[in-house]
Amino acid sequence: MPDIQVCFSPALFQYQSAPGTNVIVVDVLRATTSIVEAFKNGVNSMIPVETVEEAKALKAKGYIVAAERDGIVLDFADFGNSPDNFSAQNVKGRDIAYSTTNGTKTIQIASGCNSVAIGAFTNISAVCRWLEQMDGDVCVLCAGWKNKFNLEDSVYAGAVASRLLATGRFSTDCDSAKAAIMLWDTYKDDIIGFVNKSAQKKRLQKNGLDSCIDYCLSHDKTDVLPVFCNGRLIDSKYL
Amino acid sequence: MPDIQVCFSPALFQYQSAPGTNVIVVDVLRATTSIVEAFKNGVNSMIPVETVEEAKALKAKGYIVAAERDGIVLDFADFGNSPDNFSAQNVKGRDIAYSTTNGTKTIQIASGCNSVAIGAFTNISAVCRWLEQMDGDVCVLCAGWKNKFNLEDSVYAGAVASRLLATGRFSTDCDSAKAAIMLWDTYKDDIIGFVNKSAQKKRLQKNGLDSCIDYCLSHDKTDVLPVFCNGRLIDSKYL
Repeated sequence: MPDIQVCFSPALFQYQSAPGTNVIVVDVLRATTSIVEAFKNGVNSMIPVETVEEAKALKAKGYIVAAERDGIVLDFADFGNSPDNFSAQNVKGRDIAYSTTNGTKTIQIASGCNSVAIGAFTNISAVCRWLEQMDGDVCVLCAGWKNKFNLEDSVYAGAVASRLLATGRFSTDCDSAKAAIMLWDTYKDDIIGFVNKSAQKKRLQKNGLDSCIDYCLSHDKTDVLPVFCNGRLIDSKYL
Repeated sequence: MPDIQVCFSPALFQYQSAPGTNVIVVDVLRATTSIVEAFKNGVNSMIPVETVEEAKALKAKGYIVAAERDGIVLDFADFGNSPDNFSAQNVKGRDIAYSTTNGTKTIQIASGCNSVAIGAFTNISAVCRWLEQMDGDVCVLCAGWKNKFNLEDSVYAGAVASRLLATGRFSTDCDSAKAAIMLWDTYKDDIIGFVNKSAQKKRLQKNGLDSCIDYCLSHDKTDVLPVFCNGRLIDSKYL
């Protein structure tokens, strides 16, 4: 029976992952919610880049660039990392270079695994369907904050793990998965209250960027599933 | 107001710690419970050593050695890592070299901080009193399992964090501390049931070593507080 793991930080992934794992990368506030939004609105592809220099180089080559650090849009970028930046008008049919504080680095860390897909609450059912049909071990990899644990990604991991276990076709021996499920089970009826306790809520509020939180916590706005393949994020329907 | 942090893995400590922090190292099952037991029973000092080679070298110098890997007593050691090994008969007045899978490495990782003390449920009130009188930031550092998150150390961290917050003289902005407190608050009335879900319970059971779990989860068997100082663990009363 396939095993479900949850990894609370990119810095812990090396101790948990196996090459055959199907990885879901999550950065609920806001990178992976924004990526899902971009694919919902018809972006052609996205290139996650880790460094500011790589983002600049792609800008010079004519790419549209979405990039932020610590919630602040980088000066050379076309826009930042709020889901509403990724409107159809901004992204439809385009290729976008994308760099954020935590999310893009995390995608690249997972790149040696069997598959890497992008998870958010806004596509959580698509994520679970994908994992069910992949039929291998699963790891929900939380982007966290600068390698630290965070509340919002961990509770999302619990939501996914809980759904997969409920199918009866997965099991888990992973203490992180169990803790994530406990958090989800205890707080799922007040997930906004739960995320209001997070450090990231304060950070976004400080920069006037917290109005997107309700949207980031809403379920199933789309069926798209972005996957990471050959250095790019593409819609899984093209696989 | 001093801040409370919880670090879920030794591999994450570099991203959370500050040199001025007072660190509590915890490895409930079983290293730090055993260390507390040794000091309760009058050990003179303990030298935590990371590698099997260091433990062997101290054995050759005449030290008593307690050492295990993955729950198995090392062949040259005098005894292993169960609290009941550290009886007065075995430890009183002696200096013991000590090496375990996760616990001893974790103690050494914290050694650059303001203070490093050893926490277990069996001395939890002594731990909290110590942190209250130290009057600086606090980090409860979980030994985990081979750098992975574990349930038993995390819920202990939540117990300590919860008590400190209740004094009104500490605060926390740390998402790990908040999650640990949530786990403690939800499961404190059935902590044995909670720890029965852990991977470590299965490991100990497999080796016939799980009979110590109830003891490891019992509160305040002693007032001793072992502290790490100049490469040795000593009783805090000698500071």
